[in-house]
Amino acid sequence: MMIFAGSGSQQLTQKICRYLHVSAGKNEVIQFSDGNTFVRVLENVRGRHVYIVQSTIFPTNDNFMELLFWIDALKRASAESVTAVIPYLSYAKGDKKDEPRVSIRARVCADAIEAAGADRVVTMDLHAAQIQGFFRIPVDNLYAHRVLCQEIEKMDLRDIVIVAPDTGFAKDARRYASYLRTSVAIADKRRPEHDEESEILEIIGEVSGKTAVIVDDFTISGGTLINVSTELMERGAKEVYAVVSHGVLAEHAAQKIDGSPITRLLATDTVENHPNSLPKKIQFVSVAPLFGEAIRRIHNRESISAMFPDSNNI
Amino acid sequence: MMIFAGSGSQQLTQKICRYLHVSAGKNEVIQFSDGNTFVRVLENVRGRHVYIVQSTIFPTNDNFMELLFWIDALKRASAESVTAVIPYLSYAKGDKKDEPRVSIRARVCADAIEAAGADRVVTMDLHAAQIQGFFRIPVDNLYAHRVLCQEIEKMDLRDIVIVAPDTGFAKDARRYASYLRTSVAIADKRRPEHDEESEILEIIGEVSGKTAVIVDDFTISGGTLINVSTELMERGAKEVYAVVSHGVLAEHAAQKIDGSPITRLLATDTVENHPNSLPKKIQFVSVAPLFGEAIRRIHNRESISAMFPDSNNI
Amino acid sequence: MMIFAGSGSQQLTQKICRYLHVSAGKNEVIQFSDGNTFVRVLENVRGRHVYIVQSTIFPTNDNFMELLFWIDALKRASAESVTAVIPYLSYAKGDKKDEPRVSIRARVCADAIEAAGADRVVTMDLHAAQIQGFFRIPVDNLYAHRVLCQEIEKMDLRDIVIVAPDTGFAKDARRYASYLRTSVAIADKRRPEHDEESEILEIIGEVSGKTAVIVDDFTISGGTLINVSTELMERGAKEVYAVVSHGVLAEHAAQKIDGSPITRLLATDTVENHPNSLPKKIQFVSVAPLFGEAIRRIHNRESISAMFPDSNNI
Amino acid sequence: MMIFAGSGSQQLTQKICRYLHVSAGKNEVIQFSDGNTFVRVLENVRGRHVYIVQSTIFPTNDNFMELLFWIDALKRASAESVTAVIPYLSYAKGDKKDEPRVSIRARVCADAIEAAGADRVVTMDLHAAQIQGFFRIPVDNLYAHRVLCQEIEKMDLRDIVIVAPDTGFAKDARRYASYLRTSVAIADKRRPEHDEESEILEIIGEVSGKTAVIVDDFTISGGTLINVSTELMERGAKEVYAVVSHGVLAEHAAQKIDGSPITRLLATDTVENHPNSLPKKIQFVSVAPLFGEAIRRIHNRESISAMFPDSNNI
Amino acid sequence: MMIFAGSGSQQLTQKICRYLHVSAGKNEVIQFSDGNTFVRVLENVRGRHVYIVQSTIFPTNDNFMELLFWIDALKRASAESVTAVIPYLSYAKGDKKDEPRVSIRARVCADAIEAAGADRVVTMDLHAAQIQGFFRIPVDNLYAHRVLCQEIEKMDLRDIVIVAPDTGFAKDARRYASYLRTSVAIADKRRPEHDEESEILEIIGEVSGKTAVIVDDFTISGGTLINVSTELMERGAKEVYAVVSHGVLAEHAAQKIDGSPITRLLATDTVENHPNSLPKKIQFVSVAPLFGEAIRRIHNRESISAMFPDSNNI
Amino acid sequence: MMIFAGSGSQQLTQKICRYLHVSAGKNEVIQFSDGNTFVRVLENVRGRHVYIVQSTIFPTNDNFMELLFWIDALKRASAESVTAVIPYLSYAKGDKKDEPRVSIRARVCADAIEAAGADRVVTMDLHAAQIQGFFRIPVDNLYAHRVLCQEIEKMDLRDIVIVAPDTGFAKDARRYASYLRTSVAIADKRRPEHDEESEILEIIGEVSGKTAVIVDDFTISGGTLINVSTELMERGAKEVYAVVSHGVLAEHAAQKIDGSPITRLLATDTVENHPNSLPKKIQFVSVAPLFGEAIRRIHNRESISAMFPDSNNI
Repeated sequence: MMIFAGSGSQQLTQKICRYLHVSAGKNEVIQFSDGNTFVRVLENVRGRHVYIVQSTIFPTNDNFMELLFWIDALKRASAESVTAVIPYLSYAKGDKKDEPRVSIRARVCADAIEAAGADRVVTMDLHAAQIQGFFRIPVDNLYAHRVLCQEIEKMDLRDIVIVAPDTGFAKDARRYASYLRTSVAIADKRRPEHDEESEILEIIGEVSGKTAVIVDDFTISGGTLINVSTELMERGAKEVYAVVSHGVLAEHAAQKIDGSPITRLLATDTVENHPNSLPKKIQFVSVAPLFGEAIRRIHNRESISAMFPDSNNI
Repeated sequence: MMIFAGSGSQQLTQKICRYLHVSAGKNEVIQFSDGNTFVRVLENVRGRHVYIVQSTIFPTNDNFMELLFWIDALKRASAESVTAVIPYLSYAKGDKKDEPRVSIRARVCADAIEAAGADRVVTMDLHAAQIQGFFRIPVDNLYAHRVLCQEIEKMDLRDIVIVAPDTGFAKDARRYASYLRTSVAIADKRRPEHDEESEILEIIGEVSGKTAVIVDDFTISGGTLINVSTELMERGAKEVYAVVSHGVLAEHAAQKIDGSPITRLLATDTVENHPNSLPKKIQFVSVAPLFGEAIRRIHNRESISAMFPDSNNI
Repeated sequence: MMIFAGSGSQQLTQKICRYLHVSAGKNEVIQFSDGNTFVRVLENVRGRHVYIVQSTIFPTNDNFMELLFWIDALKRASAESVTAVIPYLSYAKGDKKDEPRVSIRARVCADAIEAAGADRVVTMDLHAAQIQGFFRIPVDNLYAHRVLCQEIEKMDLRDIVIVAPDTGFAKDARRYASYLRTSVAIADKRRPEHDEESEILEIIGEVSGKTAVIVDDFTISGGTLINVSTELMERGAKEVYAVVSHGVLAEHAAQKIDGSPITRLLATDTVENHPNSLPKKIQFVSVAPLFGEAIRRIHNRESISAMFPDSNNI
Repeated sequence: MMIFAGSGSQQLTQKICRYLHVSAGKNEVIQFSDGNTFVRVLENVRGRHVYIVQSTIFPTNDNFMELLFWIDALKRASAESVTAVIPYLSYAKGDKKDEPRVSIRARVCADAIEAAGADRVVTMDLHAAQIQGFFRIPVDNLYAHRVLCQEIEKMDLRDIVIVAPDTGFAKDARRYASYLRTSVAIADKRRPEHDEESEILEIIGEVSGKTAVIVDDFTISGGTLINVSTELMERGAKEVYAVVSHGVLAEHAAQKIDGSPITRLLATDTVENHPNSLPKKIQFVSVAPLFGEAIRRIHNRESISAMFPDSNNI
Repeated sequence: MMIFAGSGSQQLTQKICRYLHVSAGKNEVIQFSDGNTFVRVLENVRGRHVYIVQSTIFPTNDNFMELLFWIDALKRASAESVTAVIPYLSYAKGDKKDEPRVSIRARVCADAIEAAGADRVVTMDLHAAQIQGFFRIPVDNLYAHRVLCQEIEKMDLRDIVIVAPDTGFAKDARRYASYLRTSVAIADKRRPEHDEESEILEIIGEVSGKTAVIVDDFTISGGTLINVSTELMERGAKEVYAVVSHGVLAEHAAQKIDGSPITRLLATDTVENHPNSLPKKIQFVSVAPLFGEAIRRIHNRESISAMFPDSNNI
Repeated sequence: MMIFAGSGSQQLTQKICRYLHVSAGKNEVIQFSDGNTFVRVLENVRGRHVYIVQSTIFPTNDNFMELLFWIDALKRASAESVTAVIPYLSYAKGDKKDEPRVSIRARVCADAIEAAGADRVVTMDLHAAQIQGFFRIPVDNLYAHRVLCQEIEKMDLRDIVIVAPDTGFAKDARRYASYLRTSVAIADKRRPEHDEESEILEIIGEVSGKTAVIVDDFTISGGTLINVSTELMERGAKEVYAVVSHGVLAEHAAQKIDGSPITRLLATDTVENHPNSLPKKIQFVSVAPLFGEAIRRIHNRESISAMFPDSNNI
């Protein structure tokens, strides 16, 4: 078993290796002045089961292309198998043709990853479960909610209500609520009758006097979280926390969250290299043990679903 | 252009052909005593653009295999292109690995359809938009909501509220509400706090004194529709209608709906060969013009998205 | 090594497992009311060499689709390899385009099996040897004739003549005759000169006073066996036996054979779930040891051709 | 439409072009001193439907490789479609794994032809109908028996009996007999009981005093034809003719046939470049009109099966 | 025929459209704050032959990914064919495994382009001719040397010598010399004997008193051109010009060239969006007529090689 | 690990097996009178890692087809992996479309090898490094220059200059010079100005009074080597040697070299079965240890690049 870090997951890979008591494989990336990415594996990988860890974000397309080149380089170097560990797959959002003549970008990415020669993908909290079906190779989709819930428990909050920021995340929000044995509220944008333009945000469920914890799979600009938190405060919530699997936090997001009613934003460390320095309000919990354990189990042929005893309820 | 009917869409194909002023191609299916399906195309198709219409239901697996054989027979008979028109793709429901070690059956079906040689798929109201991404070939997904809304308008109902039977269908329900310029309510199952076992059904939004129209993409047993309609009546709805794209209506469903508070169930004719005779309460509106028009546009290289001017809002 | 049973081969799989001293893997199939098949593997298979046993018959298309879903579920569950053990592949008969515009259904099935992810196929007495060439993955085709011949020997018949029911099976019939050190007769349908309509059955070779044993690869309706047996009796055969690899015995076949001159029909147990209860005249000999031994050899990397020392003479 | 000749079918292509009133496309082949084959198309083929005619024999492997290079050169030169017209596909004989650890060479050839980019295959009297199933692209298999029967009729023979040289060709022999409204006899090798070594040739059916016409799909060494003809003469046949689709006639075959009881051997011109000069006893009838007509129909999108009204009886 | 511009070739596409008297298709690209690229085609393309023009540079990986998404969006929008016009393919340089465990990036790119669904590639002066072989789809490789030579002729220089900057480009340099009817010199780096470290630059051929024109396929940093020009001046060249097909001119290159002995650098407009503003010394000649003419010929099924009458000598 | 010899590398395989202390696997090839090649593996290979050694030359196309059949036979016989060891791949020369409408034959060969099922290729001194990119499977390209240089050292020559026979081989020539710590000269064909017809050969670099060693990757007719050697002698070289990786030596080449100024031609034993008996002037050094060591390392998962410490300088 050998583990290599791509540019987008240097720190996470170090932590995964620490969990597994192995050293990361030696490799190097060069970004040439014409923008070409060049990769080189610096250790023999012949006949080895290799894991390349790369979140495809910051910079997004550079890291995606780099991932393809790693896979190709490792396969041509005769690795026995190459597992693409993609903690955050940015193009998962491009999972459908919801307007005419757009690309299903997640499928394009899946095809490119398979064409480059990957044998398996390990990822976390895919934007839609269907994306596993975009791949023909096996995909192990890990779930962060247990790690995040444990961190919420450590905060020792009282009278919690879990808030889904839209109806589409209601089912996932219930997973959090079930773990924390609490209730769920749902935010929902709706247009008042006969008014095409304006949209108002409603909150379905009791939040007054409660500690609201908004949960979501990712936040990019922080916009949705901030809007929902403002509405929650207006409806009498005592305090608002936000918890996301993937804390993308693009340009200006951190700042905006810092100025919002959100007391604290909790995210995992699937995304590194944020464009802005992050305020104290934003905290990270590592999913390195999750990925490390998954890799260990893959290597030892143990069940990964056994890591998520409540995944049947998802 | 030649259009052939599979066993699962004999009547729909006749109507499509009528819309297009063409005759259906001659073909024949034999179901042998050992259960083997055998298909034979009885007209020259060399160099033609061929459309084979087949809903893969009743009997489900027989009709799916028959579809594969039609595609193969047409390709080997040198059709220029073969379009699989699948008004109802029953395995669309199998679109994710939501529990360990199950199959993503919709992808298996997509791969088999592509391996058999189909060049394009035309279908309607896919269970999840992501399923388009399971195919590499182009998929034209039609939308029934306009046809169904026009039928609702003909009923001349007053004070309508559109009801989504679960949070997952909320977005689609708003599409109906937007067309009919009315409001939306959402049914939502939730567990009372600290009670793992029981589930109660809540209705979010005002329904009292209104004519509730439950909308969904399909109904198989009628169970969800009946439960929601009962709850709606208890909450003071004046009357309850149900509208679904695919009226599957498996064994006993028709009967159960007949005995429920639902005044009328409206569905399209994508599913034929129901196992039970259907009571008057259940009515069908044909999507043959929709499919006919789509085929005409494909043939004449016109836009299909132009058929759905509000599809951007989906 | 793990062995799973599909719906079409529950009993055979139990016997194979007994031969190998292993337990069958836990799994479950649900047939929904809309006809959709759903499969679930209930044990960890990560990194295992898995064998799924499924005759694709009774019900034919349901069992074929189920097989595809098993393969996909096992591959996505990270099985190291998946071997499709298909004791009886019903669509093997669809191996050629012998009329215009039909499907080569066996190739469609082969492509679907490969697209679903199977790594190898094990089957028995394929209808035509060429079908191995429809697959790109390795196919181990087992031969039942030794097991069947041993069973014939146990019957202690005298003065046997092996009868091929048509010229196409003459070569195979000689394989039986060679094992039993006896002679061969061939049944042959021919049209009298200048008569397009009628066909008469001729028997080439001496059968008078002999115990005729008709051999074939399968019988579906029993029709051919019965016609040939009648003709044999008319030509003075003392008694007629029939021996087939695959005793399909569709609706009414068992009954018709029971009323025919055939003293006994011997078949292997590749087909289960016959539509009718079977009269005593029809007897089965298990090929579980054959399949069990093949699986053992595949697993231990031993030769399978060595199981059939006379296969060179086929 | 453009037609190019490969080295193995120069003369046949000229005749096909004459039938179609077109000129063969300009191209050139160089066989280098190291044995490498080099091909060059000398006319613009962009956007054209191109037919490359090449029997893969004499020299067999050189001509097969040349065919692959033609297909690739034409596809890379942007031909709209490339049809491989292979009058005689020598490796069709390698259609099964009838002994352990051999290659299914016909499938290897099919895969290589498809990988090179062919869009369709046109061939004649494939050794086994199943070979069509080795291809995913459409295969138009032409039948020579009508052309050959018409030639037999011209000979004005009396009291004909058609003879199949083995049981495997019995069905095809009946196709000849049906056209000529005459009867069939079958030659059959069998071993006397209890004698593993020797084999004797039997003739089933009346031949005494008749003009026997042995029919087969090909003859390579002439061996089978000669043996059967000798046996026929011994059994009182008045005269023996032989008719084959593909007159391969390898080294020494022509000579041996010249010295045999066969009065005349009739073959089509699918094979050129015989290694020996051919005696007068061997005569050829051209299938250029057959191939020319097939190309014309493919181009004009007319049915090819309509060329063979009796193909349903095959 | 419809032509769309990608972000990397906006200006070139405008010129190509002007040459062809058509308007560029409407489309839009959004670069989201998380770095995801999103594309949308704004016109119906159903059944059309579509050309998408995109140099994959500045920004390199963004533009490459954008190209994949365009291809996918166009194919899923049912374009009849999609031609990827890639004036400059930056990863062409990654064409071999010249050190252990690197990726053959050009093949990775070719596979991704094919997997996305492109039907054909049109490009110019590929870094190595072998790259055409990385694609299975047809590649039309255009040559800029004629356009560039015509521009050189306009400069009315006297006593020209064409200089290849290394031995690898000697053959191409002769193509220029042949067109301009002049001689060639070759620059060559070599190590003095027994000295591993230092390298010296030699010029083979007469340059003293001549107007040296260095030719190359691309320049990124300008380094090689500047070194060779310095050496040429030292060896008595009267003046030095440089001519390249692809003027990449990465960060600082323009500046460095401005300060070098090179009188003028001539390049084509395959690369846009240079990171620096360009000094007057650097001039561009458009290859829009070349690409426009190629597209016209592809559309009208005319020969593209006829555009390059001397390409046989390449 | 099992090693099998193809017809084109019988002797080399024996030597490789000796190096590895194993016996070559039993197999047999039959060349039928119609030119069909037939292969049979005579040992169980189930689950084994198999190496098939076959130079595709003499006879070229026969040996290439034979290689495809070996790969298919081994895969269908359930070999765990099949490595095609191709010491000399004759079609490597066909690596580009350097004139209109020719085939990229090396890609056709690569595709056919992959379609037949090969898992890996091992070869030596490919004509162009890019050919590795024609394969998706890993290619281990070995380098003969160290073995050849060691042989040159044994000759104890003085005052050596390495001569590249054209500018394209200059870089490779420097690899020899670097190993032997000597200098390089380059032969270069050029046309005198304004003369389209004649070409003269120039030698760049000092050769007078030196022992010239011409190096090249292969020689077929000997022509280039002889021309260059003549020119070298005219320019005062003391003696001329020639060293090539692949000594193809087609018909008449050996003779011509025997009559040339070349003192000795050194080649490796990748090519066997030369058409002419070879004069003493031509000597071979075996690369069996190179291939044997590579196979050993592949089997033991050791680095192959470590065998070529200077490959970074290639």
